[in-house]
Amino acid sequence: MTQPYTATTESHKTSMLSRKFGQEIINYFSGSPLNRVSFLRSSTAFLRAALPRSKFLLMRDLEPLAASKTTLAWVGYETVRELVGNPFDTEEEEFLRGYDSRVEIPTLVFLGMNEEGTGGGGGGESFEFEGEGGKYVGGPCFALDVTEKGSLKEECEKVQEEAVKGAEGREFRKVRLDLSLVPSDAAILAQARSLLDWNNRNQFCSACGARTVSVHAGTKRICPPSDKAFQKDPEGPPFERPPCISRKGIHNIAFPRTDPTVIMAIINSTGDKVLLGRQRRWPKDFYSTLAGFCEPAESVEDAVRRETWEESGVRVGRVVIHSTQPWPYPANLMMGAIGEALPGGEEIVLKHDPELEDAQWVEVGRVRNALQESTGTPDVEVEGAIEGQLRLPPSTAIAHQLLLAVVNGFHLAKL
Amino acid sequence: MTQPYTATTESHKTSMLSRKFGQEIINYFSGSPLNRVSFLRSSTAFLRAALPRSKFLLMRDLEPLAASKTTLAWVGYETVRELVGNPFDTEEEEFLRGYDSRVEIPTLVFLGMNEEGTGGGGGGESFEFEGEGGKYVGGPCFALDVTEKGSLKEECEKVQEEAVKGAEGREFRKVRLDLSLVPSDAAILAQARSLLDWNNRNQFCSACGARTVSVHAGTKRICPPSDKAFQKDPEGPPFERPPCISRKGIHNIAFPRTDPTVIMAIINSTGDKVLLGRQRRWPKDFYSTLAGFCEPAESVEDAVRRETWEESGVRVGRVVIHSTQPWPYPANLMMGAIGEALPGGEEIVLKHDPELEDAQWVEVGRVRNALQESTGTPDVEVEGAIEGQLRLPPSTAIAHQLLLAVVNGFHLAKL
Repeated sequence: MTQPYTATTESHKTSMLSRKFGQEIINYFSGSPLNRVSFLRSSTAFLRAALPRSKFLLMRDLEPLAASKTTLAWVGYETVRELVGNPFDTEEEEFLRGYDSRVEIPTLVFLGMNEEGTGGGGGGESFEFEGEGGKYVGGPCFALDVTEKGSLKEECEKVQEEAVKGAEGREFRKVRLDLSLVPSDAAILAQARSLLDWNNRNQFCSACGARTVSVHAGTKRICPPSDKAFQKDPEGPPFERPPCISRKGIHNIAFPRTDPTVIMAIINSTGDKVLLGRQRRWPKDFYSTLAGFCEPAESVEDAVRRETWEESGVRVGRVVIHSTQPWPYPANLMMGAIGEALPGGEEIVLKHDPELEDAQWVEVGRVRNALQESTGTPDVEVEGAIEGQLRLPPSTAIAHQLLLAVVNGFHLAKL
Repeated sequence: MTQPYTATTESHKTSMLSRKFGQEIINYFSGSPLNRVSFLRSSTAFLRAALPRSKFLLMRDLEPLAASKTTLAWVGYETVRELVGNPFDTEEEEFLRGYDSRVEIPTLVFLGMNEEGTGGGGGGESFEFEGEGGKYVGGPCFALDVTEKGSLKEECEKVQEEAVKGAEGREFRKVRLDLSLVPSDAAILAQARSLLDWNNRNQFCSACGARTVSVHAGTKRICPPSDKAFQKDPEGPPFERPPCISRKGIHNIAFPRTDPTVIMAIINSTGDKVLLGRQRRWPKDFYSTLAGFCEPAESVEDAVRRETWEESGVRVGRVVIHSTQPWPYPANLMMGAIGEALPGGEEIVLKHDPELEDAQWVEVGRVRNALQESTGTPDVEVEGAIEGQLRLPPSTAIAHQLLLAVVNGFHLAKL
């Protein structure tokens, strides 16, 4: 499902960068058809006009309403109106002045504008907004959490029922394991899932412990300076909360979190073998590239060298970044790299870090065969799998793309 | 101060990847001399043995104790013993059983082992630890927050006084703006600063609002299940806290946060101009590459295209990642990319997002001259600066390295 970069003009296909580096790989979960128009999220005028013309992706326990195994389902404003109301009728400043932490607000996130209009990919009714920077035309899309819980339980249940009514096959669908959604819908789902999960897990301020509230259409959470829940005089002003360091200075806690990770195809110093490893919980014969989290203040290149050494004992020299892939479980951004082991640093030692059950140097030819003949996700049983036959991740995984780059001579290519 | 990758063997310098991609750029703030041995952070036996033989980097309000403008200062265990105590005498499990949120604990973070021994870079006494994966030899290094506040105020002040005593020039030094630390110390500082800042800003659980506590030597924070502060019977068991979603399932809130950002040199479709922009607060004539934060579930390549369009109106096709740079203000990881504008997509429109005051297509030759003759940080006044002469960031900034790659023909090179 990974697609080569689709150029919008013919000449781009033979651009200078393409000539040198080959076509760009757009990995699964990236390449969204939506324009995020991030600068419009703080425009109440835009959001107010867009909301009733929008399509909504409903999520229950972080799983989306799907039309089928391969496509998401969308509902119109009429289905969610009672739950959502008109949150953008009030300017943010005014809303914050009246903030009351006792009132539960459904999590509603603006995803972007589908510029291809009304068809497919969740685009709402085509809509035109005249902003300071020009005209923005497209179908606005939101994600909405309809998990039945708390004081919104009944309203959420009603929306869930309404949403599947009369539409055969529509259901809230666990999509994680099969990666069967079409790539454009997978990219939209990844964005929706990451943002709803982040909102859910950041209901309290990590700096002071007080309730937070979503602003900018679900893409920012702040620790409001006052709260009616603690108002002493019902006629007086809202209760002032104690000072919080999240209200001043440079910090990141108001914004969604994305965790950079590294994933790397390591070739040996003679270029004929690739380092593969397997986790204990994976099915027999399933291997992949090594991977791990970037540490604070560590470059991607350093993280590749550290993680490879910690997990396998192999020492890596030169590292080149190949492509990247968002992975919304929970909120990772995978930096795919090709690295080269240092001569004399190729001995495998698994005992530093017990994360891997095994790591091996595998001949490039064997990797090529497995990429063609024997791929799948570790969670899906394969019928008729031959014992001892190497199994590798599917083309939707960046691990597959990195290995493909190596077997295609990424490191040797004369361009 | 950016150094080419220093290969540990001669043959690495002419490795397959190097032949194709040139030498790796190790950007300022990366390339730390410390081995993080991340798997040893959960070994109390290791930490207990290492602590008294360690060197400590003291930080006050996130600024380090420095020996000079270019080097950090380190103190031994004797200087911090009274403040720090013996936190690793107790196994983590036991410590958590007796957790009391009323007791303030100084923030102490294990940074890693200096494998070059005792000299420079903060290495402590050379120390050998026999772990399951083998012998780990080096000088262990910690960072310690000695900001005078709360119940630890007096002890922190004492450590501060003791640390500067008799050592001329030692002071807590604001190092942000001048980037004058030697690269190895800058990388250590970046790690220390990121981790202390994250600990400071995550004293409360973002999922439930309760107090969190540092484990794994400052590299993880958890929301403990019980707390003596709420104990009803002083003889009874510690108070059980309500369930918290941070105690189960896959999530990231226990771990340090790093924010991926993109920074990109965009070339026009004929390859003779580079897109530069300037922020309002920068001095006149100072320009740099465009940059911005990655969004949730967005690849680096997509983020480069989105940010470039939002800030400048320019539409970008192919994107190639060049190198990366940690930036510890507060905790960014900059993904440096070279991108190519689409033919017909080169018109500059600043009005979408008001972030930039100006953006311009600048001829490659003019960029080359400025990189050689007129660089500096935007915060430092330059004496004798000629009005109208383009000024660009210094070689310590990845923006400089990206522009250098372009003027050196990165996108055109025949390898």
